[in-house]
Amino acid sequence: MNKIKLTVLLVTFNAGLFSFTTLAADSTVLPSWNDSESRQNIIAFVDKVTDQSGPDYVPPAERIAVFDNDGTLWSEKPVYFQLLFAIDRVKALASGHPEWKTKQPFKAVLEDDMDALANSGEKGLLELVMTSHAGNTTDEFSRIVTDWLASARHPTTGKRYTGMVYQPMLELLDYLRSKGFKTYIVSGGGIEFMRPWVEAVYGVPPEQVIGSSIRTTFELRDGEPVLTRLPEINFIDDKAGKPVGINQHIGRRPIAAFGNSDGDLQMLQWTAAGEGRRLMAIVRHTDEKREWAYDRDSHVGKLDKALDHATANGWTVIDMKKDWRAIYPQVAQ
Amino acid sequence: MNKIKLTVLLVTFNAGLFSFTTLAADSTVLPSWNDSESRQNIIAFVDKVTDQSGPDYVPPAERIAVFDNDGTLWSEKPVYFQLLFAIDRVKALASGHPEWKTKQPFKAVLEDDMDALANSGEKGLLELVMTSHAGNTTDEFSRIVTDWLASARHPTTGKRYTGMVYQPMLELLDYLRSKGFKTYIVSGGGIEFMRPWVEAVYGVPPEQVIGSSIRTTFELRDGEPVLTRLPEINFIDDKAGKPVGINQHIGRRPIAAFGNSDGDLQMLQWTAAGEGRRLMAIVRHTDEKREWAYDRDSHVGKLDKALDHATANGWTVIDMKKDWRAIYPQVAQ
Repeated sequence: MNKIKLTVLLVTFNAGLFSFTTLAADSTVLPSWNDSESRQNIIAFVDKVTDQSGPDYVPPAERIAVFDNDGTLWSEKPVYFQLLFAIDRVKALASGHPEWKTKQPFKAVLEDDMDALANSGEKGLLELVMTSHAGNTTDEFSRIVTDWLASARHPTTGKRYTGMVYQPMLELLDYLRSKGFKTYIVSGGGIEFMRPWVEAVYGVPPEQVIGSSIRTTFELRDGEPVLTRLPEINFIDDKAGKPVGINQHIGRRPIAAFGNSDGDLQMLQWTAAGEGRRLMAIVRHTDEKREWAYDRDSHVGKLDKALDHATANGWTVIDMKKDWRAIYPQVAQ
Repeated sequence: MNKIKLTVLLVTFNAGLFSFTTLAADSTVLPSWNDSESRQNIIAFVDKVTDQSGPDYVPPAERIAVFDNDGTLWSEKPVYFQLLFAIDRVKALASGHPEWKTKQPFKAVLEDDMDALANSGEKGLLELVMTSHAGNTTDEFSRIVTDWLASARHPTTGKRYTGMVYQPMLELLDYLRSKGFKTYIVSGGGIEFMRPWVEAVYGVPPEQVIGSSIRTTFELRDGEPVLTRLPEINFIDDKAGKPVGINQHIGRRPIAAFGNSDGDLQMLQWTAAGEGRRLMAIVRHTDEKREWAYDRDSHVGKLDKALDHATANGWTVIDMKKDWRAIYPQVAQ
């Protein structure tokens, strides 16, 4: 072997070692993500706000990251999974309500007539949710949700609903927490519908869940204190309600926010308007094979204005098809 | 020295060592507390729920302790400090409101006529609070509270209000957190009135504060997203509202609760009704020299039904005069 050959070999070897090291370090972080711009933006942001000697440093107590749930952490098609829960719940209660056979929106539910259900409008859907979610105690409702999730299956994938959470987002939640972030869910969905399962599935404890709610009232039932769930709206945690809900629950402004639809726009704007470095990101549903593809014209998860804002303001857009190596966890939860 | 004398000396020495060790171990915990039954109850409870091999073990995530604020963590006489803030705020705003000179409850405030103010009733007090707390953004209100606390002094003690927090309760908060507890404030007072200062004073972060609130609305002001505070009640976190607020914010039932008045009764009942070992405690204002002495007949901080419940159910009653070596921190905050 001559000197030149040896030098070439050593250089190649070193270069190989170097790139191996780089790859190994990277691949432990967000492994289900391709090394896309969105992944790089996330990692660069986290590096900056956790660098104690840098100008963008944020102390751990202020590292608040908020995540929408439907369409951001788990799927939302054909409709929000909570509506499928409400439908199943009405069916389960139907034997005690013979009048539902002729009364909308219940008739539509019992006849599996989704067009008629859609035609019952917001008022009909609200009645459906109230009937299926109220009239029990907080403890009872928690058990009902837990039981439903243990047995129900998605109509087209056949998976459990908790198996339709996004693997790359699970990794993102873990990654942020490993860097001292407190991760919150901020969802238009029901706060009490999420709390029974999100700790096991997302690692988010119940006290870090913000959502829509119905009113509860404290009462003594046979001397036992209970919180009874009333058929009245308490708070709608959607659109302009999201910053309100965040302020009410957290009292700090997030430094990172993840959403997927126009319902998340104000939460992203509220996050963006704070001082210092921020991360605003939108999950785009672009994968018609592995998940669903929809945006501006979708009834559920419509992404229109928020996409324009993202483009105009340089927010991060996560393209499911291009950026994610996997969609759902390999072992269904 | 004969054998008997030597033995006596050694025994004495050993006994001395033993009691010294016990005292030293104890005195690092809750040092401003006398070794009273209430202190012993608290320590015994904490030992039980943190003993991994015992039957009462509670995992850290479920170690939720809730504290009332007014009268439990800081003083509340002659009236709730937040009302004194409202009065000062009305005086500060008065030059822009000449009509207040002849309009109640503002006239009473401007003339320092506390009887007339009391006579304006709940409606008058509500109007006072709305006028002094609304009409600004959340960021602006936070600054107003911070500025007030930096300059205002208590009318009779001359102390800063944040210097009138209870030293033994500061130690209790620290002690519980050192044992893996999450400490929450659950107050009838305003959530946004507490959040600007409780982290520095109590070590309780803003996201662990539950309180009464007025409505806020998200809007763009000159393109800048703000949360504007409206003169409308959103939630009253008092009496039966406390378990509702706890459920809404935490979504878990506390295992320990500390209050001082009938306004805390339902929170204590809700805590008591959970499974496993629990600690319910009431701070009794018995010290007319170092603080105030009041209970069943007091307008502010009335303790009547809750005291009967405490006695009937064996809850812990903390007697300020007998149980506390100090009331306020030595260096005013």
